[in-house]
Amino acid sequence: MTVFLVGAGPGDADLLTLRAARLLAEAQAVVHDRLIGADVLSLINPDAVRYDVGKTPGQSDAQRAINDLLVELGGRVERVVRLKGGDPFVFGRGGEEAEVLSSHGIDVQVVPGITSAFAAPLLAGVPVTHRGLSHGVTVVTGSAVSGSTVNFASLANPDLTLVVLMGVEQRALIAAQLIEGGLEPSTPVAVVEWAATERERCLRCSLFELGAAHVRAPAVLVIGAVAALDVAKVRSLVASWALA
Amino acid sequence: MTVFLVGAGPGDADLLTLRAARLLAEAQAVVHDRLIGADVLSLINPDAVRYDVGKTPGQSDAQRAINDLLVELGGRVERVVRLKGGDPFVFGRGGEEAEVLSSHGIDVQVVPGITSAFAAPLLAGVPVTHRGLSHGVTVVTGSAVSGSTVNFASLANPDLTLVVLMGVEQRALIAAQLIEGGLEPSTPVAVVEWAATERERCLRCSLFELGAAHVRAPAVLVIGAVAALDVAKVRSLVASWALA
Repeated sequence: MTVFLVGAGPGDADLLTLRAARLLAEAQAVVHDRLIGADVLSLINPDAVRYDVGKTPGQSDAQRAINDLLVELGGRVERVVRLKGGDPFVFGRGGEEAEVLSSHGIDVQVVPGITSAFAAPLLAGVPVTHRGLSHGVTVVTGSAVSGSTVNFASLANPDLTLVVLMGVEQRALIAAQLIEGGLEPSTPVAVVEWAATERERCLRCSLFELGAAHVRAPAVLVIGAVAALDVAKVRSLVASWALA
Repeated sequence: MTVFLVGAGPGDADLLTLRAARLLAEAQAVVHDRLIGADVLSLINPDAVRYDVGKTPGQSDAQRAINDLLVELGGRVERVVRLKGGDPFVFGRGGEEAEVLSSHGIDVQVVPGITSAFAAPLLAGVPVTHRGLSHGVTVVTGSAVSGSTVNFASLANPDLTLVVLMGVEQRALIAAQLIEGGLEPSTPVAVVEWAATERERCLRCSLFELGAAHVRAPAVLVIGAVAALDVAKVRSLVASWALA
């Protein structure tokens, strides 16, 4: 018996890996997050039992219930898929789920997925690295700032692109800390809402404008010189809109 | 006529996206890098013309020749696939290629792929983020250090995981700068060679030991508290080995 922790990618079913699609088609039970789209769910073996364990970030009770469910299924079902948005090991607590299952002697295999941290900028025409503009990229979540675990001032580095997941609510504080840390208020920002879905759209503004910008979760914040780029008409889905 | 910049993922053909596999099967011409494996190449339409444009990082002449080839093909072939290892916009200069094509009026579409920056640690059982150990992750290349564009001391942050691509050659200097910047010499490191291929293996050592460790390119360096983890037997391919 094996539990497969599988990355579902950023949203579009076409961006699943071949392995993920095959595992979904062969699964006997699938435990999935709330934000997994209907197109992805349609790839699941129709005879599989499905568990929607949608949770809001930070609900540790909910995470415990998910862990318990995975251990219970892993003890009696041959092929269980735990389907997670993006990549299982880039946020999303896949590491914890793998540890819990292993500690119960259950075989775990992990299948990487495309993280929205990189897919969201790409779909908006923004390369997270680009010669002369960005030597690298840092990915964090905005929830860290509310827990005071991360002061964004320490992440202010004009040579790197900064990608913030789950940062919409804290965007004013994040922008203020980054400017305090030394980033120019004019630093370009791209906000990509609902990446890789039909609702996808991209807002461009400056770091100074970010706090007051009308954006809604789920969205990925891309901060740095590359956020001004739109290197190609790369988008099948994205609509752009201007600051209100 | 369209040129598709397609991410081939970390190596294993099973980790291509559904979209990438379909585009390869329908391509009339494919321009690919040197490190793309035989299993991935076997998915290419057998009638397509193939161009192996393998190049060593830093050869700007070679990049110009690739740009010229893409522009030439984009002007006369209906469906061209430019196949790049990992993700087109996470290093690898996909942004530049997209800009050149767009400036020639050629339609460009970009398809994300799984970057080895995240897949390599995952396949070695290392989650790049993990509650209590890592709040985020920074990805850079080691080539930056030789060009003096990045001093790794400024990247020393014990709260973040640091992933270094193409860093094998400069590993002693990278380790020295990170320790100078404040990382403990005992900071765990995982070196993943040939991720997602049959030659994959993972070495664990400390940052202090990294400079003298016997490792060979291509490899991904994972530096930070999470690098000591092996959260599950997640590996189909990885063999681990000890320090010599």
